[in-house]
Amino acid sequence: MARRLYSTVSALPIVSPHGHTDPEWFASNAAFTDPVSLLITPDHYVLRMFYSQGIPMESLGVAPLDGSAHEKDARKIWRLFASNFHLFRGTPSAIWMKHVFHEIFGLEKPLASETADLYFDSMSEKLRSAAFAPRALFERFGIEVLATTDAATDSLEAHAKIKKDWTGRVIPTYRPDAAVDPEHESFQWSLDELTRLTGEDARTWSGYLRAHAKRRLFFKSMGATATDHGHPSALTFDLDRSQCESLFGRIQKPNLDPNEAELFRALMLVKFAEMSLDDGLVMQIHAGSARNHNGLVTRKFGRDKGADIPIAMEYARSLQALLNRVGNDPRATIILFTLDESTYARELAPLAGHYPALRLGAPWWFHDSPEGMIRYRRRVTETAGFANTCGFVDDTRAFFSIPARHDVSRRMDCRFLAELVGEHRLTETEAFELAPELAIGLARKAYKL
Amino acid sequence: MARRLYSTVSALPIVSPHGHTDPEWFASNAAFTDPVSLLITPDHYVLRMFYSQGIPMESLGVAPLDGSAHEKDARKIWRLFASNFHLFRGTPSAIWMKHVFHEIFGLEKPLASETADLYFDSMSEKLRSAAFAPRALFERFGIEVLATTDAATDSLEAHAKIKKDWTGRVIPTYRPDAAVDPEHESFQWSLDELTRLTGEDARTWSGYLRAHAKRRLFFKSMGATATDHGHPSALTFDLDRSQCESLFGRIQKPNLDPNEAELFRALMLVKFAEMSLDDGLVMQIHAGSARNHNGLVTRKFGRDKGADIPIAMEYARSLQALLNRVGNDPRATIILFTLDESTYARELAPLAGHYPALRLGAPWWFHDSPEGMIRYRRRVTETAGFANTCGFVDDTRAFFSIPARHDVSRRMDCRFLAELVGEHRLTETEAFELAPELAIGLARKAYKL
Amino acid sequence: MARRLYSTVSALPIVSPHGHTDPEWFASNAAFTDPVSLLITPDHYVLRMFYSQGIPMESLGVAPLDGSAHEKDARKIWRLFASNFHLFRGTPSAIWMKHVFHEIFGLEKPLASETADLYFDSMSEKLRSAAFAPRALFERFGIEVLATTDAATDSLEAHAKIKKDWTGRVIPTYRPDAAVDPEHESFQWSLDELTRLTGEDARTWSGYLRAHAKRRLFFKSMGATATDHGHPSALTFDLDRSQCESLFGRIQKPNLDPNEAELFRALMLVKFAEMSLDDGLVMQIHAGSARNHNGLVTRKFGRDKGADIPIAMEYARSLQALLNRVGNDPRATIILFTLDESTYARELAPLAGHYPALRLGAPWWFHDSPEGMIRYRRRVTETAGFANTCGFVDDTRAFFSIPARHDVSRRMDCRFLAELVGEHRLTETEAFELAPELAIGLARKAYKL
Repeated sequence: MARRLYSTVSALPIVSPHGHTDPEWFASNAAFTDPVSLLITPDHYVLRMFYSQGIPMESLGVAPLDGSAHEKDARKIWRLFASNFHLFRGTPSAIWMKHVFHEIFGLEKPLASETADLYFDSMSEKLRSAAFAPRALFERFGIEVLATTDAATDSLEAHAKIKKDWTGRVIPTYRPDAAVDPEHESFQWSLDELTRLTGEDARTWSGYLRAHAKRRLFFKSMGATATDHGHPSALTFDLDRSQCESLFGRIQKPNLDPNEAELFRALMLVKFAEMSLDDGLVMQIHAGSARNHNGLVTRKFGRDKGADIPIAMEYARSLQALLNRVGNDPRATIILFTLDESTYARELAPLAGHYPALRLGAPWWFHDSPEGMIRYRRRVTETAGFANTCGFVDDTRAFFSIPARHDVSRRMDCRFLAELVGEHRLTETEAFELAPELAIGLARKAYKL
Repeated sequence: MARRLYSTVSALPIVSPHGHTDPEWFASNAAFTDPVSLLITPDHYVLRMFYSQGIPMESLGVAPLDGSAHEKDARKIWRLFASNFHLFRGTPSAIWMKHVFHEIFGLEKPLASETADLYFDSMSEKLRSAAFAPRALFERFGIEVLATTDAATDSLEAHAKIKKDWTGRVIPTYRPDAAVDPEHESFQWSLDELTRLTGEDARTWSGYLRAHAKRRLFFKSMGATATDHGHPSALTFDLDRSQCESLFGRIQKPNLDPNEAELFRALMLVKFAEMSLDDGLVMQIHAGSARNHNGLVTRKFGRDKGADIPIAMEYARSLQALLNRVGNDPRATIILFTLDESTYARELAPLAGHYPALRLGAPWWFHDSPEGMIRYRRRVTETAGFANTCGFVDDTRAFFSIPARHDVSRRMDCRFLAELVGEHRLTETEAFELAPELAIGLARKAYKL
Repeated sequence: MARRLYSTVSALPIVSPHGHTDPEWFASNAAFTDPVSLLITPDHYVLRMFYSQGIPMESLGVAPLDGSAHEKDARKIWRLFASNFHLFRGTPSAIWMKHVFHEIFGLEKPLASETADLYFDSMSEKLRSAAFAPRALFERFGIEVLATTDAATDSLEAHAKIKKDWTGRVIPTYRPDAAVDPEHESFQWSLDELTRLTGEDARTWSGYLRAHAKRRLFFKSMGATATDHGHPSALTFDLDRSQCESLFGRIQKPNLDPNEAELFRALMLVKFAEMSLDDGLVMQIHAGSARNHNGLVTRKFGRDKGADIPIAMEYARSLQALLNRVGNDPRATIILFTLDESTYARELAPLAGHYPALRLGAPWWFHDSPEGMIRYRRRVTETAGFANTCGFVDDTRAFFSIPARHDVSRRMDCRFLAELVGEHRLTETEAFELAPELAIGLARKAYKL
């Protein structure tokens, strides 16, 4: 039954409403240079697993910020990777990587020390071919739409170039974190840049709001259908105008109070939700990661090196201010993601199963995995149904893994549906209607694609 | 194996020790009027799912408190329900509803827009027949005992009428929340009503306790075997007599401090546990729901419209005062329910697997579902065993769904037992002994039925 | 597939790197006296389940601390146990006990009232035979190494005797809780004893640290490869030297502040981690049990009577001080255990899947069970892989149950691996390589055995 269902969705186009691929790839269409800079160095799943087993980041080609030595020989790095590939047994990285090797590069032998050079040479050669150029792969992968994630201050020049000379649908997403989080290292710069880009004085509260509104419209004009907000917690908070002005003044000054930073982020979630009602952009909230948990790694190598740790989350009370404001408005779409699975059945499914504005995002990051997907469906479906979920989101910067990730999702969803049919909790007809909805229909609808 | 086990319990009588059916139905034995007022408008599972998908409450026949318009045409509401019935795919509501349609009303075609009128006409006609009168259905369903839930100030007249002229065992449950929770809108009224009903001055601490004790005995004389306590948290707290008097004085005054309200509720759990030792009534605690989470819906439509959201719970420390007082007394029975499944294996099973007075209630509300039941058994059994659980509780106001709910529970329990047999964790003999215990034996024993 | 995998590991030796057997058994090699003092009275799983069902501790032979009466007739206690053995249906205790009866004592009939005397007589007789002496059983069980858990002030005389006249590898583990936890009833005594044993003034901060360092080296000289730390929370904290001295002074004085006690325990986790870098002892942290939750039982019968309750845990922030200090050092090995399964996928697997010094311990205590093991693998593997886990730990004082516990673990791990093969998430070759790693290889490596 699972196989029959899967056969009806395996070849559907890929709808990727949220991810972190680089639009420049598709703008320039330049060949990827080598397997290591493509698959190893930028993959925080690889870095974290190898690092956890005592393999230095430098040996994987990650450059220390202070300019000290790191391995630059791609072949050597690939060999190190190959000889430790067994560490990924039982992890989604193994599934994704093997899919890339076999399905995309046509490599059949298992990756190991002995086959490392074979892999490296074969992949390097293929990457130079026209068939492996970004746009060609985009089409080969059957991607219907691919959303990138872009700072509020991004010029979107790459997107402009793509629109001008290609038919592939690569759209931006408004992710204003650096211009919203007073604790972000680029916050002050972002305010000035917003001012420069919009002509609004983003150092005043009203100018700041107008600047965001203008940038959102600009993103929308470039194809964006959604915004994204990465916050440490899901706290939302509403204040009256004079309190907002006062708070906005204080968080621009030195000696920032962390509580006020949190309050400002909480306030802005409500303000962005209000803007969503105006411009129709779908709002995504990715909350609950303690970023840069490892001080040493952050100082030495910077962000996104696999050192982010999820923390326990609370949604029911935290979201109250946001929900009071827009939760009952069916025109709004707010998509919640979590790294704390204990909230699926306890808070998130009950919330999404009641508030018209809320939807539940796909299992995220550490939970974007076979077990994570099954846990998600089992804990969410009975209370929120399928219609309050949003299909699959690959959320990846690893372009080559996109087909693998969607494939895993489709397989696990079909397995779940097949189980329900087996237990007479769904009819076959219902399951065959639901399978394509889970694969692409719900994502198209929730993200207005 | 699961089927063989199920065949031994599927036809057992229904023991329903906790629920929210209306005793007036069985007192008057008046026919139910139509499918909508019976199955749609009062079902908060239906309201929440439809509302989450942007369908206004009014269109489902829910009357706004301010008297403004709502749909009154039952057939129209039924059509709306039928055309959106697909929203329940994968949810327990679909299982319950289909069971009601097929098993009780004998409708074989799937419910959809095209069959909406067929359903409506057929069900309306059947509801007018003698076979569908409340008492007839009670007997057809094989209900051995059905507990209702009644305010401390309830006259229990309906129960008196039932006892007088019918053999069906419908018993009350003492649920004093409105007379215990200082934040309840009827708290002050309840104190005066308690005074009126008992002749004790319920505005004084000692009179208040005596009033509860008297009402409990009255409920017991009307067949009650249990009390029920719906609290936001599981906090319990003990105070000496003069502190109790002082607190009780303060929570009757204006400008109630929410912390003192919480403290008073916590205190009363201990006091009710003490009363349980005296009168032998089993004590149920349903804690952990943030009631009326949606301010707009509460203001517009009132309580119980599907806008209650579970919150994270803590039991180990919260229950300490209660357990210090009665936890070691095997004469007491305190049944704990939770909406936070992360507490099953972490706190609740260890607590129930140690304290003689504690038992674990059935999976509740959002977890009264196939997946919820399996999670419950898997997380609870290894530490608490079966003997510290209490069988199934349907906890429903949806009278027609009672057979369906008990059937789902029996099926899932038999599936769980069959798995244990398959893995040699139980013998067949043990499984066949346990199946009827889980279906009715444990409930009879825990609730003294 | 599961059976084929299991057949390759079922007969492997037992590596038991953490447990609570009594080294005196192996030093004296005296016969165990009777089934009750061996299997019932010291087993807190048995005590908790029987007590939860209203069976007094005294009737199981547990002596009240005040010297009041308790059952002393072993046969009577065994009969009581036999007639209530059904309470363990579905629990790991049933699996362990049945394994002991059938595999070790060769008893084939089910245990029940009717067979109680048969069991008692047969077991008593066998226990007197040479084949059932501790050393003989140790060899029969195929134990390669067995670690005990010993106070910082323990003389390790039993270990010395074992080393002198036997080849069985029984090694101590440094568990300094009583000399670390200012709230422990033996804390003050332990400081003086440390002073006496080491010649360092353990009442001064620097002397206290040196005393621990010396004792650790003594334990290491006696075969220890690890330390163990049982703390109520996972909090870690670092202070500068003068703050340490000041805190250490205050926590030795009367009127201990519970917050300072917690701070001192948190500080010592960091200090012990530093010592681990010096002496190479592996560090285990068992955190998250609210010990002696039942005041009455503790006062009447003392510790470890089945009245410990897990509490919700936080690791990401709590461990930050420890991880800042040693987390990035691959020479350190810190093994984390938890009783809060909601932290497996949320915090522990992400932490262990990143920090070189961290490993995840086996499912512990209430989760040392078939369901607990499967939940562990499902929630941990995808993020931490297998290499960041440490194999199985039986953690038991029930010597006879050690083979059963390792057997359950091997069966469940093989089942998990077989599922991954079935879903094409592992190859067969990989599964056959992993099975012995999970059974013994990872434990040997993590614990340096």
